[in-house]
Amino acid sequence: MSYLLKAPVLEVSEWINTPAPLSLANSLAELKGRVVVIHAFQILCPGCVSHGVPQAIGIHNAFPRKDVVVLGLHTVFEHHAAMQPESLKAFIQQYRIPFPVGVDLARRGNHIPTTMHALNLQGTPSLIVIDRQGQMQLSHFGHASDLLVGALIGRLITEDVN
Amino acid sequence: MSYLLKAPVLEVSEWINTPAPLSLANSLAELKGRVVVIHAFQILCPGCVSHGVPQAIGIHNAFPRKDVVVLGLHTVFEHHAAMQPESLKAFIQQYRIPFPVGVDLARRGNHIPTTMHALNLQGTPSLIVIDRQGQMQLSHFGHASDLLVGALIGRLITEDVN
Amino acid sequence: MSYLLKAPVLEVSEWINTPAPLSLANSLAELKGRVVVIHAFQILCPGCVSHGVPQAIGIHNAFPRKDVVVLGLHTVFEHHAAMQPESLKAFIQQYRIPFPVGVDLARRGNHIPTTMHALNLQGTPSLIVIDRQGQMQLSHFGHASDLLVGALIGRLITEDVN
Amino acid sequence: MSYLLKAPVLEVSEWINTPAPLSLANSLAELKGRVVVIHAFQILCPGCVSHGVPQAIGIHNAFPRKDVVVLGLHTVFEHHAAMQPESLKAFIQQYRIPFPVGVDLARRGNHIPTTMHALNLQGTPSLIVIDRQGQMQLSHFGHASDLLVGALIGRLITEDVN
Repeated sequence: MSYLLKAPVLEVSEWINTPAPLSLANSLAELKGRVVVIHAFQILCPGCVSHGVPQAIGIHNAFPRKDVVVLGLHTVFEHHAAMQPESLKAFIQQYRIPFPVGVDLARRGNHIPTTMHALNLQGTPSLIVIDRQGQMQLSHFGHASDLLVGALIGRLITEDVN
Repeated sequence: MSYLLKAPVLEVSEWINTPAPLSLANSLAELKGRVVVIHAFQILCPGCVSHGVPQAIGIHNAFPRKDVVVLGLHTVFEHHAAMQPESLKAFIQQYRIPFPVGVDLARRGNHIPTTMHALNLQGTPSLIVIDRQGQMQLSHFGHASDLLVGALIGRLITEDVN
Repeated sequence: MSYLLKAPVLEVSEWINTPAPLSLANSLAELKGRVVVIHAFQILCPGCVSHGVPQAIGIHNAFPRKDVVVLGLHTVFEHHAAMQPESLKAFIQQYRIPFPVGVDLARRGNHIPTTMHALNLQGTPSLIVIDRQGQMQLSHFGHASDLLVGALIGRLITEDVN
Repeated sequence: MSYLLKAPVLEVSEWINTPAPLSLANSLAELKGRVVVIHAFQILCPGCVSHGVPQAIGIHNAFPRKDVVVLGLHTVFEHHAAMQPESLKAFIQQYRIPFPVGVDLARRGNHIPTTMHALNLQGTPSLIVIDRQGQMQLSHFGHASDLLVGALIGRLITEDVN
């Protein structure tokens, strides 16, 4: 399955936590003109669990859906057998993640999954922010300040789209 | 001394932590067209010390001075004898506050100081955000989310000033 | 495999993070006369990850091994498929857990694993403290205060063993 | 006024937050045979406010009064004019400090107050723990771990007094 933004293309093998099988196609239309925040994480990554996941949930809760859409991306690049979709599903339920999470597409022989490789992410957690025209405005590895992320989102919501 | 923004007017008896005696007059000109954040606090207020002061310092550090100016306002409305300017000056030094702090003007017989009363603040900490045209856009009592404050500032920096 | 203290008996299917296959038998002898702290947890339990695990590591680091031994117990009672030993092993590595962890023995048809059932634990995280004579002195479900846990351990180390 | 333990002697100019003027004399008798914890602090010291004061309140709340007595000691060695007893009293009320606080005796010409000097404290916060026989068992400058402080208190409560 392939999920298209102007940039980046999210290649995922499975979407979890979407309200209905067809919701993704619907989302594609809905994302047009909105700021998209992608939280790339692994369920057994300490910095993701303590900082990245709560921040992503905070962003989801802070902004109206018409302005900002948050998506999770499970980018497993280590301990692959330990972080299969079955474990991801339990994690999503236990941590009450309220947004869709895609499983980054694994390709045989590659430790790094497809989207993570394409986006040149350095590790997890990574926070990606895409503006209303589909251009990537931020790709941040590690802890990102709520003030600065908030300011970026506030700016991107406000800017005119030509 | 009276410090004029379109709104609000800050009436302070003393400015502390300004680089030079004349800096205030200079600041007046410099503030034009910038977002102004006012952190109203008391040095012996637990919520100010644990949340408000670090947040105000964070805002000061997160944005360039050409876009955002942070000012402190010491609005003493209780335990007046305990929070005199001498104590405020030590607090500013101990907590390494990097922005100017004004002492809200006390008037005889009033527990609540002049600016706090004029702005109708409910208590401390309060966070006030003024846009580039001098209009108050936020007056928040209590804990304010970094994400939402960041988003507001990001929007106000971005908006066209007519 | 069965791991005997006077009370409780730990029934585990596997020990992880022990220096050598024979270490457990060695440990049995070594535990005699020492305070034993058992941290019962699940890798996808938020309260375990944010509080219980750091506390158990803190206890391990705070006391000499001749006085206090910390053991983990992975008591999976929900999302069983999501928390198999493969995932536990990755968790132990990612969170740098420095003490042995046993996998509580699952029995067919029972959601609750054997030791958790025998000890009547209410959930995870649970903290169990056993004195130098093998008697259980604490079985606490949820967040336990470092001060009180420290005080209990300090008392148990100090008390005469008859 | 002089407050005698075998060691140390607390020399204070004033006690605040005692239930009655005579309570100190009463306390002297009551302290016999109990563990005494002294929290040396300054109201405008960031580390005291964020860590030391909450820890001292935690110790006060964690142990029965018959076993452990917590006392505050306001050891002002800098910004003296900013931290007079009037400000200390407001601080005690605002931070809801539940134990007595003594004002360390200032002597003309000395920056460092009398008890702080006698005890050779390095700064604030400092935590002092005295056993049931009046011997100092800990004098710790800076952040002290709750686990280790708890363990020390647990040991001192348990040890036989000859």
